[in-house]
Amino acid sequence: MSEVRLPPSALPADTRRRFVELLGAEHVRTDRAARLAHAGGRSYLDLIRLRGGDASGAPDAVLTPAADEIPAVLAACVDTDTAVVPYGGGTSVVGGVSGADRGHAAVVALDLSRLNRLVALDEVAQTATFGAGMRGPDVERALAHRGYTLGHFPQSYRYSTLGGWVATRSAGQASTGYGRIDELVHALRCVTPTGELRLGRGPASAAGPDLLALVVGSEGALGVITEATLTVRRIPPQQRYEGWSLPDLPAGLRALREMAQRLGPGLAPDVCRLSDPDETRSTFLLSGSLPTRLVRGYLAARGRNPGCLAIFGWEGEPGQVAFRHRAATRVLRAHGGVSLGAAAGRSWLHGRFAAPNLRDTLLDHGLLVETLETAAGFGELPQLYARIRRSLRDSLGRVMVLSHVSHLYRGGASLYVTVLAARDPADPVGQWTAAKRAVTETILAAGGTLTHHHAVGTDHRDFLGAEIGTAGLSVLRGVKATLDPTGIMNPGTLLTPPS
Amino acid sequence: MSEVRLPPSALPADTRRRFVELLGAEHVRTDRAARLAHAGGRSYLDLIRLRGGDASGAPDAVLTPAADEIPAVLAACVDTDTAVVPYGGGTSVVGGVSGADRGHAAVVALDLSRLNRLVALDEVAQTATFGAGMRGPDVERALAHRGYTLGHFPQSYRYSTLGGWVATRSAGQASTGYGRIDELVHALRCVTPTGELRLGRGPASAAGPDLLALVVGSEGALGVITEATLTVRRIPPQQRYEGWSLPDLPAGLRALREMAQRLGPGLAPDVCRLSDPDETRSTFLLSGSLPTRLVRGYLAARGRNPGCLAIFGWEGEPGQVAFRHRAATRVLRAHGGVSLGAAAGRSWLHGRFAAPNLRDTLLDHGLLVETLETAAGFGELPQLYARIRRSLRDSLGRVMVLSHVSHLYRGGASLYVTVLAARDPADPVGQWTAAKRAVTETILAAGGTLTHHHAVGTDHRDFLGAEIGTAGLSVLRGVKATLDPTGIMNPGTLLTPPS
Repeated sequence: MSEVRLPPSALPADTRRRFVELLGAEHVRTDRAARLAHAGGRSYLDLIRLRGGDASGAPDAVLTPAADEIPAVLAACVDTDTAVVPYGGGTSVVGGVSGADRGHAAVVALDLSRLNRLVALDEVAQTATFGAGMRGPDVERALAHRGYTLGHFPQSYRYSTLGGWVATRSAGQASTGYGRIDELVHALRCVTPTGELRLGRGPASAAGPDLLALVVGSEGALGVITEATLTVRRIPPQQRYEGWSLPDLPAGLRALREMAQRLGPGLAPDVCRLSDPDETRSTFLLSGSLPTRLVRGYLAARGRNPGCLAIFGWEGEPGQVAFRHRAATRVLRAHGGVSLGAAAGRSWLHGRFAAPNLRDTLLDHGLLVETLETAAGFGELPQLYARIRRSLRDSLGRVMVLSHVSHLYRGGASLYVTVLAARDPADPVGQWTAAKRAVTETILAAGGTLTHHHAVGTDHRDFLGAEIGTAGLSVLRGVKATLDPTGIMNPGTLLTPPS
Repeated sequence: MSEVRLPPSALPADTRRRFVELLGAEHVRTDRAARLAHAGGRSYLDLIRLRGGDASGAPDAVLTPAADEIPAVLAACVDTDTAVVPYGGGTSVVGGVSGADRGHAAVVALDLSRLNRLVALDEVAQTATFGAGMRGPDVERALAHRGYTLGHFPQSYRYSTLGGWVATRSAGQASTGYGRIDELVHALRCVTPTGELRLGRGPASAAGPDLLALVVGSEGALGVITEATLTVRRIPPQQRYEGWSLPDLPAGLRALREMAQRLGPGLAPDVCRLSDPDETRSTFLLSGSLPTRLVRGYLAARGRNPGCLAIFGWEGEPGQVAFRHRAATRVLRAHGGVSLGAAAGRSWLHGRFAAPNLRDTLLDHGLLVETLETAAGFGELPQLYARIRRSLRDSLGRVMVLSHVSHLYRGGASLYVTVLAARDPADPVGQWTAAKRAVTETILAAGGTLTHHHAVGTDHRDFLGAEIGTAGLSVLRGVKATLDPTGIMNPGTLLTPPS
């Protein structure tokens, strides 16, 4: 990291002194290591910039407050015109922790790692209250100790935090069964520059608009989520995961749709994931643990090419799992599915968080590697899939595009795309920025959402108006003006900064 | 109605002329019949006032625009300082269409009855787009014609409208299985004085905060919902409804909790409703179709008093219904439940929308009859139940309090209470206002939500701050200032008018 160019900290001495008074010197760091460790997220652009030696996105200081110190910290930041980037696991893949607009006196990362407690577990209501800075494995460990699980497993799970999941409206890999984070959150506390929002009461309410839904997905631009209460469940006594082969993508999509609509949430599998032919081939190629030769031989004996690999998972009590498994099996067989058995399922479970590590290796080899995702209705998905692939080929030339459909809803599903191409060494940032812009316009034109679970960050902010309209943008800006009148909260994330 | 005192219409002639130019004379009514027909909702206070001859809450005019005329109508209302009360079925039980603050030049009811079309049905995504003014039976008729159902059956179903359901965050009687209206809405259009919000894209999104959730539950105070797209389902081939007797309320609550948590949504019954001993007795007493003697005899032969009557309903494909029915039966038996068979279930289905008619009869007999409701976690429900009953007895003296628990969530349920007492002929409004205030404070202190599905209206507005806090109120007021800067949208509903 020594060749990385890090501009000197712009934090004025007075401001620093004020933070030290509030937090103690050990919780106000301006050293190179701390600043670089908070210099960006995990998007391709973040990684390319840092690998290129550019750490100009790094904060001027890193603060690690306790929960009850955060209101005073924000007050000090308002007074001193210091921009605040709430920082959880730093795993944003859309520039959510790296794009702070520099139109303020300084920028600090507000690292929430000290908010790392399971605050309360209500075993009657089966809800748990967590400090926002708890990382995935800590969340599950604390719950497992009492026999519970949250069941929220985004790919970033090992590093990302509960507060980050809430702030970005995250979806876990088992969200078909366990629900998205917005469905799991019951209550939260969010400290803003003008006061604390404490939202959520009872399991459901009709007391006016759901303001909690305004904080979920606010990406640090309204305030700092410090605590959240979520639905948890008893650890399921049985987990059953299986691989299947579907003849082709249209057949696979029809099978998923039938599961979503005829079985519906609760009866459909908890995990549903259908790879397209290209992702299927590369999975067979790359998989260390999947018995590839066996699978190919098995399918060939049935006169089949690998087709589309699908992974399904069921979790719960054995009787329920057995019933749901039978129901899904009937649907899959009716659409030409062939079971690949539990080994393929276990293989996926085993490697489910590994893709980001693989990406680092590919980056080392000079490749462009990035992912993008959307969601759409079942009627739009086939066109959306075809147009995304065409757009990426048009922009990048020779490109590998690996896709899968997952996160089932009654009306549609998400579409996740991994892009691999030769990196343009002269201008890697420009190369991807142009391709990303084109593919985003394609997605929006084809009826897809701007993002299904990656969030807006800086990468998508200029497109938010295409999703929520001018009136929607006015509402968001109005809410920000109410809660953050001086605009210090994660400026440049979610909303394009006023010029 | 001829003795009813209706003040003359305050609509200035110029304003009237402008509306007539926009809509045609037949869609701008200021006659007595039209104004009285829109003079209030169906709360006890609304009914008592009208029965007492006071129609001072009536609008000065009733407009019936087409959907595409609404932006121009709102612009005219802004220009002329005319307050707008969006009007669907007029079934609000919290003063949602009767409390217009008179601090404007005039008040018009914006009757949405012409927005009564099924705009689109997407059979692939299983979503349907409706005009906001469609009443319940029209919604179901239009869908049934194509083989679909929305499955949303609030008690007001026969009169209330789709737009009203969305505007008040309604819950139907089968919401345990079909979902609350906020879970069913995918997209909507809402015309506000500063522009139209068109929200919702794909089956799920992480593109910033969920602004759709800000319009759902906005009760006409931000704009006029003109159209909404909701999840629909194929009409279930099987409906199975049953009555059960549980030994007492605690046992019944334990059974409901186990269904909510061990079976969970999708596997639990679609309708779950557990009456307390008082409601059970009065159901047996009042039921015309339930074979009361048979039921009592059957239970007595098992050494049981009537205990707590419960109704469960399952809808879907026969194999799924059978499995879910078996799972629920196991839970109910384990908690001492005795099945009363399908007749009791049919009896409830048959009478499910009849209570409001019964209320009119009771009002004729000089009684105070009102309902109230809340929701809370399973841990709080027993205390909440006891404290509500105590509060009502303290306020009203001799009072009949009939309660049931319904609308299951993983963490809790709603609690619905019917109150019957002798009406104070000298001051019926004051009598109920004082009792309502006391019981609302009790609910909030015991951890219940201000309202689970009745909405805020005027009756609950002064308590909204207790639920969402000062910061939450500021956010709501900020959003209103953005969308409705002159405050003409349903003033006095949802938010206490600025004094």
